[in-house]
Amino acid sequence: MPKSNSSVNSGSERALSPLQEKIYRIIFEADTPAGKAFDVALLIFIVLSIILIMAESIQSLNQKYGELFRILEWVITIGFTVEYLLRIYCLKKPKQYIFSYFGIIDILSILPTYLGLVFASSHYLTVIRSLRLLRIFRIFKLNRFVKDSNTILIALRQSRRKILVFLFFILMINVVMGTIVFAFENETNPGFSSIPQSIYWAIVTLSTVGYGDISPITVGGKIIASIIMITGYSIIAVPTGIVSVEINKASKPENLEPRTCKSCLSEGHESDARYCNKCGEKL
Amino acid sequence: MPKSNSSVNSGSERALSPLQEKIYRIIFEADTPAGKAFDVALLIFIVLSIILIMAESIQSLNQKYGELFRILEWVITIGFTVEYLLRIYCLKKPKQYIFSYFGIIDILSILPTYLGLVFASSHYLTVIRSLRLLRIFRIFKLNRFVKDSNTILIALRQSRRKILVFLFFILMINVVMGTIVFAFENETNPGFSSIPQSIYWAIVTLSTVGYGDISPITVGGKIIASIIMITGYSIIAVPTGIVSVEINKASKPENLEPRTCKSCLSEGHESDARYCNKCGEKL
Amino acid sequence: MPKSNSSVNSGSERALSPLQEKIYRIIFEADTPAGKAFDVALLIFIVLSIILIMAESIQSLNQKYGELFRILEWVITIGFTVEYLLRIYCLKKPKQYIFSYFGIIDILSILPTYLGLVFASSHYLTVIRSLRLLRIFRIFKLNRFVKDSNTILIALRQSRRKILVFLFFILMINVVMGTIVFAFENETNPGFSSIPQSIYWAIVTLSTVGYGDISPITVGGKIIASIIMITGYSIIAVPTGIVSVEINKASKPENLEPRTCKSCLSEGHESDARYCNKCGEKL
Amino acid sequence: MPKSNSSVNSGSERALSPLQEKIYRIIFEADTPAGKAFDVALLIFIVLSIILIMAESIQSLNQKYGELFRILEWVITIGFTVEYLLRIYCLKKPKQYIFSYFGIIDILSILPTYLGLVFASSHYLTVIRSLRLLRIFRIFKLNRFVKDSNTILIALRQSRRKILVFLFFILMINVVMGTIVFAFENETNPGFSSIPQSIYWAIVTLSTVGYGDISPITVGGKIIASIIMITGYSIIAVPTGIVSVEINKASKPENLEPRTCKSCLSEGHESDARYCNKCGEKL
Repeated sequence: MPKSNSSVNSGSERALSPLQEKIYRIIFEADTPAGKAFDVALLIFIVLSIILIMAESIQSLNQKYGELFRILEWVITIGFTVEYLLRIYCLKKPKQYIFSYFGIIDILSILPTYLGLVFASSHYLTVIRSLRLLRIFRIFKLNRFVKDSNTILIALRQSRRKILVFLFFILMINVVMGTIVFAFENETNPGFSSIPQSIYWAIVTLSTVGYGDISPITVGGKIIASIIMITGYSIIAVPTGIVSVEINKASKPENLEPRTCKSCLSEGHESDARYCNKCGEKL
Repeated sequence: MPKSNSSVNSGSERALSPLQEKIYRIIFEADTPAGKAFDVALLIFIVLSIILIMAESIQSLNQKYGELFRILEWVITIGFTVEYLLRIYCLKKPKQYIFSYFGIIDILSILPTYLGLVFASSHYLTVIRSLRLLRIFRIFKLNRFVKDSNTILIALRQSRRKILVFLFFILMINVVMGTIVFAFENETNPGFSSIPQSIYWAIVTLSTVGYGDISPITVGGKIIASIIMITGYSIIAVPTGIVSVEINKASKPENLEPRTCKSCLSEGHESDARYCNKCGEKL
Repeated sequence: MPKSNSSVNSGSERALSPLQEKIYRIIFEADTPAGKAFDVALLIFIVLSIILIMAESIQSLNQKYGELFRILEWVITIGFTVEYLLRIYCLKKPKQYIFSYFGIIDILSILPTYLGLVFASSHYLTVIRSLRLLRIFRIFKLNRFVKDSNTILIALRQSRRKILVFLFFILMINVVMGTIVFAFENETNPGFSSIPQSIYWAIVTLSTVGYGDISPITVGGKIIASIIMITGYSIIAVPTGIVSVEINKASKPENLEPRTCKSCLSEGHESDARYCNKCGEKL
Repeated sequence: MPKSNSSVNSGSERALSPLQEKIYRIIFEADTPAGKAFDVALLIFIVLSIILIMAESIQSLNQKYGELFRILEWVITIGFTVEYLLRIYCLKKPKQYIFSYFGIIDILSILPTYLGLVFASSHYLTVIRSLRLLRIFRIFKLNRFVKDSNTILIALRQSRRKILVFLFFILMINVVMGTIVFAFENETNPGFSSIPQSIYWAIVTLSTVGYGDISPITVGGKIIASIIMITGYSIIAVPTGIVSVEINKASKPENLEPRTCKSCLSEGHESDARYCNKCGEKL
């Protein structure tokens, strides 16, 4: 096994039997017909299990087919459990998978049904299964989609600090404004019964959702509400501007890749540069 | 017919009689006075037919003028049918038209009235006629508008994968969040009667529409709702950023491709430049 | 009068008496103390007249002070009429003012009160006076503000065709979607009583306003509504992208001004160009 | 004291005793363990005091624990008062702090409780304490966050005039549109009882909040409402475009000013460039 050489320092590793190798190829790879078939079948099962949870929550359906739903739920859960155990069984380094993003999602997809035997309400957490659908990108070899999601994710990661600062300000505006409106409305309007409730209303207003279940009735409350609305309407520009700039940067890696200086190996030269701006060598 | 030579390999083609040629020039071209008059008349008829459908749907008007409406509807439908048949009659390659965007819209504009003889409810589908209004760009030779819509369409096409990825994430957020709020609200709030209903509510909230027909009443539900609102308020930045970048690219495509200076090989010259702005050589 | 020479071909012109010149300087110019005082007083009167209209519309105030309000209204209207006549009186070419933007706003600000003598309902049109407030930019010599509004206006003008195309598509989406939801909801939901009403609802939904006075109750209606909401939430990116790009262009006129080719007088050369890209001369 | 020399012209200054110096280092600096502990404790107290105000506003909690809340409120207020006095005590130039942003926030955080002894309603103003949380950036040495907030603030400051012009137009649209809808709705719709009320509705609509507590019922009102909605939906693009452009500029300010090549005079070199990328000369 020549491969194991290069990864000797990346954790505990075990040798695989031919059966394990075969299972590995079916479950983790989508190149062979069997592997592709497995992945498509898995996706269909995930979608079915989500539809099942939804159907179960509709009372009229649940009364008629409740028994069937529960049986199907267990069939799917046991199927997912077997799949999970097989994934662990066929890997050289199971720990790496178990604590990876998909490993955690996979165990969270089956746990709620088992927990449901003890705690009734945990049952709906099975909807976490829908996160397994993210495999869709991997399965259909949607490389361009993966590349595009990466562009978005890079842009979001690059702007995460700016967005956190923005959310922090948003939260403070909501706390202060919610309390001010509370002072105005509290006595006449039952909708503004407490400050947390008023902050909830401020969030509903600032985000321009505007349910209307709570709305100000005093003149002062309406004036503050108008200020919140126009603020919310205008400062949406801030995250948009931040993300636009970052997506702009993230979506032009062409300049960045091919322009490497042969003399000093520095990267990221502008597309119209004629000389390396690090060492002065001609590009 | 010298023309047929060059397009010999683009499908079946038939010779046109002088009458067919004349009809062709009136219906398909807008250069001659007759052709322009036809196109304007057609537009007016399309608008009238849309107004007619709307008027029909207003009960008070329908009770009074119902008979008149039905007669006018048939007059317009028969007129459109004759026009459709003429279009097929006067073309060298009718198939190309029939399966083109406008060919399909044109047949969909008249079918519902005929189907209405059999299925009563299909009648309102005639509103598809409004899509025929897209001819407006062609008729008035609104070249600059067509060019501008192309810029938008190119930008949307370029960003379609990124937007699909975005919509996929949106959908998953809605499924997961809708279910979590369902778990909180289900017992006390009749608005959250099932998971699909809660997902509908999550979409209403995340998109910042906020009807208010359903809104959370438990503390947990309100906290999750606040998270959905602020998320929806913030991540609108993502599609905006994507499309901004693409429109930016699409609105200056002339510069990028063909203009390379033969002397110094610099690129990106403006579309109306006559000399290279790097070395002064004629482009 | 040497000035009249140069403008001889720009319309009928009359000589001004010293009195006319003096009034001109007070009313139309803001350089002298008297001119500035006049302009500030005018602004205050405009704001007062707007507050007056608002106060009049509040029943409780109107019952108490109705008589006073009507007197003040006539005082202000007669004041504005005198001002309007003086403006015409002191100008060399009154026609140019009368048909200018501000000339039309000024006459529209006083007409409704006079028309109110004949038609009672026209009274509220006096609110058009608020448009006179645009003078604020001129009066306080807010040059930088004027420059900034120009940037916005240029960006909007440059993108007007793209935005019109966008609005046209929005309208068609609303017509088609409104009709489809009408077909679903019509029988069970009194809110969707006619197609125009359903289109109104579609506009409320697509623009993410979401009053909630009308909302779908059938499953089909909710699914179409979800599609409209997510569409509305996503395609806001289009006008934003268009305007961002144009504001970006409009807000960097630095490159455009100083770079004029001395040889062929062409303008708008890129800031890093070393040779004129029109005639090849060195810049 | 050599320091006082250089700042001799920046206001009255006093010598500090060793005790004052020690307090200064604990309160104003976060480098020493004691200073950091103080800052973290302060933050926790601020958060606790905000939670306390919220809890007090919830009636059911207030009835039970009202006495406890009032005691805690006074404990925190006296604590903050001591802190405020210590801050003044240990500074060389107390005036500079007293009239700084944080100095004003700090006094506003304690005043309402004392004023509450006289005016009952002023009590809720203590929520202004939440603004003290802005210290969080300083305390945790969140330099990168500070830098990022600066980028946002610079962008907002640069675009403040454009945004003010925009808000001015928004306000005028709301005044004019609100009055027009008032003229339509006034007689049939109790929601549109006065012009200020209609303007409030116009703001709710234009900002796409859409509570639904007031909504038009006449045909004319609905048409104007549709226009306001589509306007509001479209012109959100304006502030977004403005801020995007400014954030773009603000997030790369290093490049622009100081980097000019001495050899070929080309500008705009990247901040980390060591050689001119036009002529290869050292920068």
